Amino acid sequence: MENNCIFCKIANGEIPSATLYEDEEFRVILDLGPASRGHALILPKKHASDLFELPDETAGKAMVLAKKIAGTLKEGLKADGINVVQNNGTAAGQTVFHFHMHLIPRYQKDTVQVTWTPGTLSEEDKNEILSLF
Amino acid sequence: MENNCIFCKIANGEIPSATLYEDEEFRVILDLGPASRGHALILPKKHASDLFELPDETAGKAMVLAKKIAGTLKEGLKADGINVVQNNGTAAGQTVFHFHMHLIPRYQKDTVQVTWTPGTLSEEDKNEILSLF
Repeated sequence: MENNCIFCKIANGEIPSATLYEDEEFRVILDLGPASRGHALILPKKHASDLFELPDETAGKAMVLAKKIAGTLKEGLKADGINVVQNNGTAAGQTVFHFHMHLIPRYQKDTVQVTWTPGTLSEEDKNEILSLF
Repeated sequence: MENNCIFCKIANGEIPSATLYEDEEFRVILDLGPASRGHALILPKKHASDLFELPDETAGKAMVLAKKIAGTLKEGLKADGINVVQNNGTAAGQTVFHFHMHLIPRYQKDTVQVTWTPGTLSEEDKNEILSLF
């Protein structure tokens, strides 16, 4: 556990939470400032600040868990869709630096904004980005 | 492959794409209408309309691949952050019904909107949602 990491404390039960699921490696909680009804967070118990610090095995398990919990939420709440969102870095909207995945049930005509204006892919950008791989 | 599924055709190489990565199960491409510089899509080659149709093993591998590709993009493009976004259902912004994960590099002062206004979690909602699990 990292000192002063609130998600370490929640994930490990030092701070109480509305827990939807728990196993040895993860806790899934309801977000206290939900974007929509049923907004949940998947938290690994072992600290990693973001996706890049998370061991591959934990990353894989987190996605399988996301599928499972998202399915229960979608069906149980009769949601019309669900976003799985995982932010890395302040510029990406990350506010707590302990890896977490957002499960955001979506409803017709809700006001959640997970959208963007499509740009264009220039030949120059394409070639430069391809050269990174 | 599903008939008339454009992401099946792209993932399986029937339609050319700017491919960043390919293996037996996945293709990673640049989005032609990028939200930001380096916006990439992870596509499984085998059709699944959304996360709920995707086999657990493929879901887990997709997240591990997201970590790997996102790391190369973030470092190579000197991005300040990165969003991993996976939408399920029209209400959630899904427009192509073949599972995909968006990797969206983020830069200071870009105009991408992956955000929401936090609501509150009522006792009634909390108890009803907890009862689903």
